[in-house]
Amino acid sequence: MTTPAVLTTSTLDAYAGRLTDPSVKPTDVDFGGYLNPQTGPFLVNGARPGDTLAVHFRSITPHFDYGISAVLPFFGALSSTPQTPTLQAALDDRAWHYAIDTASGSVRMDALDSDHSFDLDPMHGTVGVAPAGGEVHSSLTPGAWGGNMDTPEMRAGATCYLGVNVPGAMFSFGDGHARQGEGESCGTAVETAMDSTVVLDVVHDYVTPWPRIETDAFIMTTGSARPMEDAFRIAHTEMVHWIAELTGMSTSDSYQFVSQASLTPVANAVDTNYTVVCKIAKCHLKGASVYGGMHDRLKAL
Amino acid sequence: MTTPAVLTTSTLDAYAGRLTDPSVKPTDVDFGGYLNPQTGPFLVNGARPGDTLAVHFRSITPHFDYGISAVLPFFGALSSTPQTPTLQAALDDRAWHYAIDTASGSVRMDALDSDHSFDLDPMHGTVGVAPAGGEVHSSLTPGAWGGNMDTPEMRAGATCYLGVNVPGAMFSFGDGHARQGEGESCGTAVETAMDSTVVLDVVHDYVTPWPRIETDAFIMTTGSARPMEDAFRIAHTEMVHWIAELTGMSTSDSYQFVSQASLTPVANAVDTNYTVVCKIAKCHLKGASVYGGMHDRLKAL
Amino acid sequence: MTTPAVLTTSTLDAYAGRLTDPSVKPTDVDFGGYLNPQTGPFLVNGARPGDTLAVHFRSITPHFDYGISAVLPFFGALSSTPQTPTLQAALDDRAWHYAIDTASGSVRMDALDSDHSFDLDPMHGTVGVAPAGGEVHSSLTPGAWGGNMDTPEMRAGATCYLGVNVPGAMFSFGDGHARQGEGESCGTAVETAMDSTVVLDVVHDYVTPWPRIETDAFIMTTGSARPMEDAFRIAHTEMVHWIAELTGMSTSDSYQFVSQASLTPVANAVDTNYTVVCKIAKCHLKGASVYGGMHDRLKAL
Amino acid sequence: MTTPAVLTTSTLDAYAGRLTDPSVKPTDVDFGGYLNPQTGPFLVNGARPGDTLAVHFRSITPHFDYGISAVLPFFGALSSTPQTPTLQAALDDRAWHYAIDTASGSVRMDALDSDHSFDLDPMHGTVGVAPAGGEVHSSLTPGAWGGNMDTPEMRAGATCYLGVNVPGAMFSFGDGHARQGEGESCGTAVETAMDSTVVLDVVHDYVTPWPRIETDAFIMTTGSARPMEDAFRIAHTEMVHWIAELTGMSTSDSYQFVSQASLTPVANAVDTNYTVVCKIAKCHLKGASVYGGMHDRLKAL
Repeated sequence: MTTPAVLTTSTLDAYAGRLTDPSVKPTDVDFGGYLNPQTGPFLVNGARPGDTLAVHFRSITPHFDYGISAVLPFFGALSSTPQTPTLQAALDDRAWHYAIDTASGSVRMDALDSDHSFDLDPMHGTVGVAPAGGEVHSSLTPGAWGGNMDTPEMRAGATCYLGVNVPGAMFSFGDGHARQGEGESCGTAVETAMDSTVVLDVVHDYVTPWPRIETDAFIMTTGSARPMEDAFRIAHTEMVHWIAELTGMSTSDSYQFVSQASLTPVANAVDTNYTVVCKIAKCHLKGASVYGGMHDRLKAL
Repeated sequence: MTTPAVLTTSTLDAYAGRLTDPSVKPTDVDFGGYLNPQTGPFLVNGARPGDTLAVHFRSITPHFDYGISAVLPFFGALSSTPQTPTLQAALDDRAWHYAIDTASGSVRMDALDSDHSFDLDPMHGTVGVAPAGGEVHSSLTPGAWGGNMDTPEMRAGATCYLGVNVPGAMFSFGDGHARQGEGESCGTAVETAMDSTVVLDVVHDYVTPWPRIETDAFIMTTGSARPMEDAFRIAHTEMVHWIAELTGMSTSDSYQFVSQASLTPVANAVDTNYTVVCKIAKCHLKGASVYGGMHDRLKAL
Repeated sequence: MTTPAVLTTSTLDAYAGRLTDPSVKPTDVDFGGYLNPQTGPFLVNGARPGDTLAVHFRSITPHFDYGISAVLPFFGALSSTPQTPTLQAALDDRAWHYAIDTASGSVRMDALDSDHSFDLDPMHGTVGVAPAGGEVHSSLTPGAWGGNMDTPEMRAGATCYLGVNVPGAMFSFGDGHARQGEGESCGTAVETAMDSTVVLDVVHDYVTPWPRIETDAFIMTTGSARPMEDAFRIAHTEMVHWIAELTGMSTSDSYQFVSQASLTPVANAVDTNYTVVCKIAKCHLKGASVYGGMHDRLKAL
Repeated sequence: MTTPAVLTTSTLDAYAGRLTDPSVKPTDVDFGGYLNPQTGPFLVNGARPGDTLAVHFRSITPHFDYGISAVLPFFGALSSTPQTPTLQAALDDRAWHYAIDTASGSVRMDALDSDHSFDLDPMHGTVGVAPAGGEVHSSLTPGAWGGNMDTPEMRAGATCYLGVNVPGAMFSFGDGHARQGEGESCGTAVETAMDSTVVLDVVHDYVTPWPRIETDAFIMTTGSARPMEDAFRIAHTEMVHWIAELTGMSTSDSYQFVSQASLTPVANAVDTNYTVVCKIAKCHLKGASVYGGMHDRLKAL
């Protein structure tokens, strides 16, 4: 595709559409060995290593009127896992049905003997480009290339910036969530297929070491690593350097500034790397130009 | 004191008032071997092990018109520390002056060649009771007894619930911050002496394993541990059990509910334990009574 | 006591002698709220803050002809714990009886339908002085003051060096193990009461930041922290600085030296802090004097 | 190749032979974007997913009479790194020359103003097969597929067992070390090209989840993860299950057995995953057959 490009497509849910009935145990479903299928990769003409790919989410709309969340055996923040194994038995695996009402903007959880309504807040859990160094990672892993960051900040209206590692960037995305709590503690959100429109463009000759997000109100950095304090360290180090660059402050002043100004939500505490987000309100930037005004330009397109 | 009790007092800043001049290097200040002095302990009549102490923050007002933040050697999330040592040299230690204007509600950072205005958002970083088991911890450490959690959620209007471990609870607090970013990445906030009024009461025969916070809009749990994912696990496990208790849902349903509903800000990434907060909007509780309506009662007093 | 002092005493096992019958479930035993009782504290005349206490273990002999190991609920490296909680059920708690034969130097594990003989290798899991800064820690916690390091290196013939934090040092020890695997993965070793003789002396005006151990063949440093890589970082940083001091090498050369020379066993992966040991063979020290020859002197006494 | 196969080959050192002069700063060397080149992959005829590849190291001999170790910027356990970033300056990068004397079996470190002789103890830091799920990982990363585990246990006489993930296994190895301390704290060992002979065979229909090692005296499991306690948990969980399988003990008895019997050296504390090894002396196995006697058979070949 030639940039800026408007791309309208659909994404499968994280179960590849194979888990639809909450009365079926997830362990009885044949997922074919893979979870979290992505749409793409899309080759972005002109994107070269050393550039940054800008991905503006114009719309993210649930494709169906339901979503499914599940507790899978040995997965989730409040269970032992293959990476943090214990000798304990798995939690009972189970699926939950959610009714999605795009008209009213609500998501209704159907619990065993009650139900709960939440705001619909669609997002993509997985957004990325090809990793550096010829690596190939599972779509369950987040890293410097983006991937399965699982941050609710990746909603319509946001622009994600990803460092390009290979010619054409090889952009892909998926893992639609009708909504997700910060941390995604059970391991799955309200997983659902999505109809999404993204606008893509390239910032040439600008390296973005770790994924960043911009909205009308905030700039954000991300870090994905284990232990979680390392994800924190990455996100905050990236923000300190970015703020210094945007404002002309020294690194020392920027460190001080970020320490008093940041919001720091956990994105996920369940994936093969944990993700932490660092947010700074744009009102503090005194008009500094972020990626040359890319967010506003893609939004207006 | 007999509860409910209204307690109006002052707290020293984390430097015990010894660091006031940003042109002086923090390492040249004699802190007398101790940092972060607390006000208290206050013996709460009638508080017994197995009870919960409720601490409602009615007002938190900076005592002076300035605050000081500092980068201290080998302290802070973006430095090696005694607990995470490396062979690298320390960052330059330095202090920053902030002008506090309570009338306009602003905090102005005086950087080397610029200044930045933030919203004034006073809070107490350290709030706690005597630990269990006869332990005595530095006021720099957060844990199940509260202590140096450093969460910006501890602002006026919030009620903090602390499990009582010894007769009289032995409540103390301090470490006023005119404002603090989530994570407190450089290790210090806008440190300032505070004039504060708290209202104290006791919930008898109710165990609160880890500190909780209630505001008009949210209930919150906290976890303080290392690595940071363990702080996350504690906060989310506590919330799952609390929500199950409040709503009557099964643990499994509650886990699912929390996974989709939680906000999860990092409180601190710099103290001897890291602190993570889990927040659930009270609108989801369907009128469940939280601590028998304690928050509303103390607020109205 | 006046140093050098020879101290012969007994220590209770970690269950305070209350768990003796492997057919009784540990959860059915009333431990009175405390585990791991220590013998002491002993005030060491002349030991002042800034000094180092040397503790030479002349003999460590099981007091009884049996030891008990146990899996306790939510304790151990292969279980979730209060610090690393999950929603999973606890492992079945259970106790194992070991027959100790000091004559043949063997420990026999009585499993359900088999038995296994190991070498008797008595040690003390907990060895420490009063912490700095007025802190009081559970005897289950290891730290800069020593405490529950649970390293099998603390056997007869070893000399442990501990930094003195308070006048008189306030030495204590206990937690005898007839033997223990490195990591103590289930959380308990072959716990047994011990008859032990230690020789105490003071190295004046020499600060030992973290506990060290010397044997005829090795010098060792320890680090106790979470996550475990921080315990590693502490132990190795301490060794790099110590080797530089002993040999006169630069820090850079010492770092290189330690990287090729160290042995690094995990001591414990189960306590409130994890402990890692760094060992360097004394044959590499080219005759450098370790603590002025203290180990040899105490051994010869 | 058809198994059992004897494979004699050479491996480049981790710098691809580009760092030979200790007077040159490592940062001034052009490594071409990649470090740690491997020899292979070798397709093993008949190896299928679900099998285990056995790799017996018959001989590992330094190809040259020297090795090079280096401190690289932002690499090593006692430095901040891209995964654990801080704002501190890098340590000075520097290289060290080691003279290797295979006749006397010694390695001599040439420090700035001294030298130190160690035992020659050749090993391969990186030994692996193609990962599962189509992943491709940097040769700097260890994981379930083996890779850059950096354990000194991988010396001549050892047999490594690796789970096969793709047809033909795609075996590769390299990263020769003339010797290495446990933990490899500065990030590099005495790196050198090697002439090695390995014997390969396949255990059909037996899954090895994480790499294992067998010598005449020990069986070993490995875990590679972050934080380091997770590497410990993996290695010990794997050993508990393996011992239960080998001896017929219950999992509970095996957990108890491993807790008292294990040796647990840290392999590396510097790679993108940390590696911990769990060792059990074979004398405790009461003659249980390990991989059907594969180690003895390959050794005798």
